[in-house]
Amino acid sequence: MKNYNLLTKQELQNEYSLVKSEYEKYKAQGLKLDLSRGKPNSDQLDISLPLLAESRPREKCFSVSGFDCRNYGVLDGIPEMKKLFADMLGIKEEYIAVGGNSSLQLMYDALARAMLFGVVGSERPWCKEEGLKWICVTPGYDRHFKITETLGFELLSVPMTSDGPDMDMVEQLVCDPKVKGIWCVPKYSNPTGNTYSDETVRRLAKMECAAPDFRIMWDNAYAVHDLGEEGDKLLNIFDEAEKYGTLDRIFYFTSTSKITFPGAGVAMMAASPKNLKQILTYMGVQTIGYDKLNQLRHTSYFSDGEAVHKHMMLLAELIGEKFDITLSALDELDGLGIAEWTKPRGGYFVSLNVMPGCAKRVFELMKEAGVTLTSVGATFPYGIDPRDENLRIAPTYPTNDELKVATAILTLAVRLAALEKLLK
Amino acid sequence: MKNYNLLTKQELQNEYSLVKSEYEKYKAQGLKLDLSRGKPNSDQLDISLPLLAESRPREKCFSVSGFDCRNYGVLDGIPEMKKLFADMLGIKEEYIAVGGNSSLQLMYDALARAMLFGVVGSERPWCKEEGLKWICVTPGYDRHFKITETLGFELLSVPMTSDGPDMDMVEQLVCDPKVKGIWCVPKYSNPTGNTYSDETVRRLAKMECAAPDFRIMWDNAYAVHDLGEEGDKLLNIFDEAEKYGTLDRIFYFTSTSKITFPGAGVAMMAASPKNLKQILTYMGVQTIGYDKLNQLRHTSYFSDGEAVHKHMMLLAELIGEKFDITLSALDELDGLGIAEWTKPRGGYFVSLNVMPGCAKRVFELMKEAGVTLTSVGATFPYGIDPRDENLRIAPTYPTNDELKVATAILTLAVRLAALEKLLK
Repeated sequence: MKNYNLLTKQELQNEYSLVKSEYEKYKAQGLKLDLSRGKPNSDQLDISLPLLAESRPREKCFSVSGFDCRNYGVLDGIPEMKKLFADMLGIKEEYIAVGGNSSLQLMYDALARAMLFGVVGSERPWCKEEGLKWICVTPGYDRHFKITETLGFELLSVPMTSDGPDMDMVEQLVCDPKVKGIWCVPKYSNPTGNTYSDETVRRLAKMECAAPDFRIMWDNAYAVHDLGEEGDKLLNIFDEAEKYGTLDRIFYFTSTSKITFPGAGVAMMAASPKNLKQILTYMGVQTIGYDKLNQLRHTSYFSDGEAVHKHMMLLAELIGEKFDITLSALDELDGLGIAEWTKPRGGYFVSLNVMPGCAKRVFELMKEAGVTLTSVGATFPYGIDPRDENLRIAPTYPTNDELKVATAILTLAVRLAALEKLLK
Repeated sequence: MKNYNLLTKQELQNEYSLVKSEYEKYKAQGLKLDLSRGKPNSDQLDISLPLLAESRPREKCFSVSGFDCRNYGVLDGIPEMKKLFADMLGIKEEYIAVGGNSSLQLMYDALARAMLFGVVGSERPWCKEEGLKWICVTPGYDRHFKITETLGFELLSVPMTSDGPDMDMVEQLVCDPKVKGIWCVPKYSNPTGNTYSDETVRRLAKMECAAPDFRIMWDNAYAVHDLGEEGDKLLNIFDEAEKYGTLDRIFYFTSTSKITFPGAGVAMMAASPKNLKQILTYMGVQTIGYDKLNQLRHTSYFSDGEAVHKHMMLLAELIGEKFDITLSALDELDGLGIAEWTKPRGGYFVSLNVMPGCAKRVFELMKEAGVTLTSVGATFPYGIDPRDENLRIAPTYPTNDELKVATAILTLAVRLAALEKLLK
């Protein structure tokens, strides 16, 4: 197809009529589809049903440490769960504290503690300082941004590149002692799906931060979420930070939410021994311990990191089909000069940039045709996309048939919005 | 036996020799027993094993609302879990938000939010105020006190009476606007085991508080933990607060920790609709939702409040024996004039007051004989019992045989410590 930017007005009008009539056919169907939710559908969850199949008599309620997992105690998690996470992620067991079902909660709690008590290296609780700022890589994860916005930080946008955050900009921003940290989804980033380059990881570990208590919130949510055997490789940031003496800078998170069950997985936080000691002191005031039976459920099912990988390959078959459907549909836009999108090798999202100024219009057109997209701007601080161009496509939740229809409509809406703009 | 305070020096010396020799016999056995831990033993946990016996195929993973409980979402809990809590406690479903496995965490989080953002009625976040104070009923629950101590409150002690906190003193303290709240375990209080009288509950609901954002942390941890059909009755504080227009004052908590599994139960918070709206706004920044599969496990097993009651009567048989053993042993101290103790109709603890100045010595004597008691002072703010007289006896964790030996040694240690003091 021909680049829209090179068409004559008449050609544009012809194309508009054509696309519009196709779009109207879908609209007339009164559909109700959803491309907005970064959550698995029930078929994917069924893969993990064996975790719930097993009856658990008394003798299966004990940890390798001999502890009765039904009872109180073991604040930082049972040893076999730490071992599993360590094996999955290639990090040290002694850095790990196992949490409840939500890594988001561990992240919020980590920053709430920083506000109330400070972190290792802080001169005072962060709530006693004024004008604090936080770096947000954009487009990024709305729930990250919301945490730091709610805690009162000024959010600073740094653009995502194919190698990760624009590091020149990050290195400049961290010269300001008011800048206390940065949100990172380093592998299969939400929503762009790309992975930080080795050089980016190294520069994050190495950079000079004016704040003595700067923190990298390293949300490795998609650590093992490859769509095939050939996944992206992410450098181990702990190894790099150790080299540069910045180990305390790293707050590392992940969970099994998108491995087993989003609502009933196991989350974890990893940090340097010094950090962990401070964290567990306060965590021990907050709770006696997280759900160890659910940890046991996971370690009974997954013997090691390799078992997790095999399980992820089963999920990849299902999710891979959805990515394929989405990317095939987007191929319709190839060469039109009105959109760019990512082709991730893992994770949960495809990031679609439409013609600047057109994202909201695409959202509207989709809504009118009965397809819900993630709100435009959700991937930016304060919910505002300054160029009104980014759409986060979440292909996992609909069925394949629904997805085929929804993405077909999407390409029509993207074309229609561009044509409207060009014809203005 | 004769009151020690009426004995001659010679009689005291004879008694000392007698008790000392009995104590030494136990000491020689090299025992290792524990009366310190307010946690159930494995036999009690076995009563709840049916919750873990059931395999959960896909069709059993859905809430009555049609929601897939394996997935993300449903921040405030599935409807059937709210209904179960409402039925158990006689409170309104619409006041309830279901949490994770820990009510302590819900309490910490509630106060951490108050510090960071304030509560309904606050003029500013509490962390922006100086010199805040908090009322602690003593003896009380060490983990409560630790939360407010850690958050920077000055802790004010108010003595527990047989009717609950000394309300004259509470009513006076709340005239200070710096006093932001009070910790309450209103039924089978930890550690005294007594229940607040109707009048106490009414006065708490009715009292004039200078702080516009005063909060009663109503930890109804032992709401259904009667040791027999004839349990204590606690007035519904929400009903009272409604009468006096102080509904926003109440933050209500409970959990199934000591109903099913301490490490894997379900916790909840209840509050007025106005409070709940503010709470859920921030909770929704902290997490996408708590573990709904564990909620389903509980509601699959407990059809209603009556089912919970029947289950508690099974537990009461086991725990009742332990209370009987403990109280029979303490009968040995009857009439000696050296100790007083509570005889609770439910809960988890017996509170023992020994001769003033003797509690630490009893702790030492027990330790030397191989029995761990809860640290002296743990039931008081900052861990200091000003009269050095209170001991919290936790009878549930040891086996019956262990408990018989441990409580026999306890009565000897109490007598020995008193005799040492009287002979000085």
